[in-house]
Amino acid sequence: MLIVQKFGGTSVGDTDRIKNVANRIKGYYEQGHRLIVVVSAMGHTTDELIDMAMKLNGNPPRREMDMLLSTGEQISMALMAMALEAIEVPAISFTGGQLQIMTDGTHSNARIRGLDTTRLDEAFAQKKVCIVAGFQGVNENQEIMTLGRGGSDTTAVALAVAVKADECEIYTDVDGVYTTDPNKVPKAKKLKQICYEEMLELASMGAGVLHNRSVELASKFGIVVHVRSSFNHNPGTLVVPEEKIMDMEKVLVRGVSLKSDQARVAALDIPDRPGLAAGLFEKLATASINVDMIVQSSGHDGKNTISFTVPSNDLANARGILEKFLAELGGGRIAVEENIAIVSAVGVGMKSHSGVAATMFQALAKENINIEMISTSEIKISVVVQKDQAKRALQAAHTAFGLDQNG
Amino acid sequence: MLIVQKFGGTSVGDTDRIKNVANRIKGYYEQGHRLIVVVSAMGHTTDELIDMAMKLNGNPPRREMDMLLSTGEQISMALMAMALEAIEVPAISFTGGQLQIMTDGTHSNARIRGLDTTRLDEAFAQKKVCIVAGFQGVNENQEIMTLGRGGSDTTAVALAVAVKADECEIYTDVDGVYTTDPNKVPKAKKLKQICYEEMLELASMGAGVLHNRSVELASKFGIVVHVRSSFNHNPGTLVVPEEKIMDMEKVLVRGVSLKSDQARVAALDIPDRPGLAAGLFEKLATASINVDMIVQSSGHDGKNTISFTVPSNDLANARGILEKFLAELGGGRIAVEENIAIVSAVGVGMKSHSGVAATMFQALAKENINIEMISTSEIKISVVVQKDQAKRALQAAHTAFGLDQNG
Repeated sequence: MLIVQKFGGTSVGDTDRIKNVANRIKGYYEQGHRLIVVVSAMGHTTDELIDMAMKLNGNPPRREMDMLLSTGEQISMALMAMALEAIEVPAISFTGGQLQIMTDGTHSNARIRGLDTTRLDEAFAQKKVCIVAGFQGVNENQEIMTLGRGGSDTTAVALAVAVKADECEIYTDVDGVYTTDPNKVPKAKKLKQICYEEMLELASMGAGVLHNRSVELASKFGIVVHVRSSFNHNPGTLVVPEEKIMDMEKVLVRGVSLKSDQARVAALDIPDRPGLAAGLFEKLATASINVDMIVQSSGHDGKNTISFTVPSNDLANARGILEKFLAELGGGRIAVEENIAIVSAVGVGMKSHSGVAATMFQALAKENINIEMISTSEIKISVVVQKDQAKRALQAAHTAFGLDQNG
Repeated sequence: MLIVQKFGGTSVGDTDRIKNVANRIKGYYEQGHRLIVVVSAMGHTTDELIDMAMKLNGNPPRREMDMLLSTGEQISMALMAMALEAIEVPAISFTGGQLQIMTDGTHSNARIRGLDTTRLDEAFAQKKVCIVAGFQGVNENQEIMTLGRGGSDTTAVALAVAVKADECEIYTDVDGVYTTDPNKVPKAKKLKQICYEEMLELASMGAGVLHNRSVELASKFGIVVHVRSSFNHNPGTLVVPEEKIMDMEKVLVRGVSLKSDQARVAALDIPDRPGLAAGLFEKLATASINVDMIVQSSGHDGKNTISFTVPSNDLANARGILEKFLAELGGGRIAVEENIAIVSAVGVGMKSHSGVAATMFQALAKENINIEMISTSEIKISVVVQKDQAKRALQAAHTAFGLDQNG
């Protein structure tokens, strides 16, 4: 088989861990598989490099940051190749540039457009394991471009697409994807399977196991991604197309998640006029404020209320923008609520079933938890609750959706 | 003017030092000069990377070592560009690959063949300072190749040749080139000028200020190299073509040097037969034994003696090879002397003057220092003495050649 394996920063955190990973790779190699191994920078290398940069320039040029940060993966890949050679596994490492991993977009946030597999094919012909620097590519001027934090996942999936890999394994420091955060809900269960759409909703809600763009890419090309731990040999979680979810795995809700440190901002009594919301959210987007939930309800008196949530540390900024917006509009009031959290339930199963929202609301009502805002999509229900009740809300939802028994 | 400046590992050893260098560069930039700045890896980065490699593989593949070590310069150059931008000096960094610094030869010991100045020209058109990673290039397959320890000097001179620079400055942690090692001879004087040939002989004798290949390259293209300190603004030493040495600087001996930790090996009573020496030294070279002085004297009885010096830690190996050689030859004896040192006097002036050797021998005789071996070339006289007398021999020679009064 042709297998792409990606090892994150914790998995290659020091030379002992690199040795462990090399031994794991050797096991696969000796079974006759062709292997492409994508590595991240070692443990805290990236943070150390950023620290040095910040000492020199509070606002470093992004091009030079890409030059700097891309060295982290280059160090890892060279060391991994050496570790493999030491245990008699022939190996060769490649930078993003050497594989012509071509990118679009801007420095520090580039997107992979394609890559050239010639050197990989040559290496396979020589029975070598290919080690590839994650997180990096080049543009048409051979400028080094990085893919943004977590971009090594995307490198792995892009390689899996390009070489038509049979498997794509993402090794990390957790056992897989869970029904919710095990630190917050002890009954959280590891999932055997999850579909792309669910993974995307859970990741954006903070599950954070896989880089979002890697899931989008896997989804686009139908690549099955196996998320598993590099510290044991347990099977992890398969991220698959919806139609590949086994019957017995079909559930209404795949998992529940919690996003803390949020604030709610409401613009009250504003005119009910087309284009008004668009104008406001464009201003917020321009200021790079990460708006999550948006709820609008028309009043019966030609007045409108728009509420939205932002991360707590964006609150002051968002409030300023809203104040200016209302002043220009000549009307409306602002209400702000700090210390809220968002609890979400995600599952493609809910598309075809009603009653999922009701189950969630009942579960919270039973716990006397007040819901301050509700937003639903095809596969997600999100509610805003007080921060100090959020963990209880998460546990109640986990139980109500039968996730305590899962797995 | 177009100036190439190279800053070594000590000069960019930490972020404060990088800031200092950036300020120095700013001074030149504000005078309207176009600047190419070559940087080495920060302080001990290279050693730290080598340590990690050695933990994983006692004999790491050289290709992967080049992948690994080239990151050191890439980190330095990105940080230097950031430091310059922070003080409003526009800057852009380039890897060896981005400038297509093409190399011949093997990994870890490549030689620069040429480079493409297009991107430098573009950057100058945008009034940018160009920062270039020292020590690295690429081969025709875009494999990263390093130039060997100290190779950043060669990068600087190669760039000076390619862009026809007006000046090439090598910044280091010493003030310039001295008549001898100031740690051993307190009266050592800084030289204003030294010619390429003298520099090469002194460097190979352990003066070690400039990388040998950089001097050869400078000599080939007549590039004047200014060796100076990055910690002060004193003028350093100009390395120049012989004909550019000013009249008043013309001396018989430019400097004296000492090479310790040597051993002498002699093959006695061997047949006086053509090709015999060639066979022996080929075997030693194949074993990578660094033979320095070689002296042969024919006896009057058809027997011959060949003596040579090797670094102490190569002695056992050299002796083994010689024993085997004599056994195959069926004759001869071996004499070995440990704890010797080589004292040399170097100067292009001695080419046209006799009596330099006599001066040296008399100086040592006056100190009651026995000379065990003598070797002379056009611009160098070397003698082997007992290690415990070496420092005294060095001082005596320094005085005898009038170097105490120099400068």
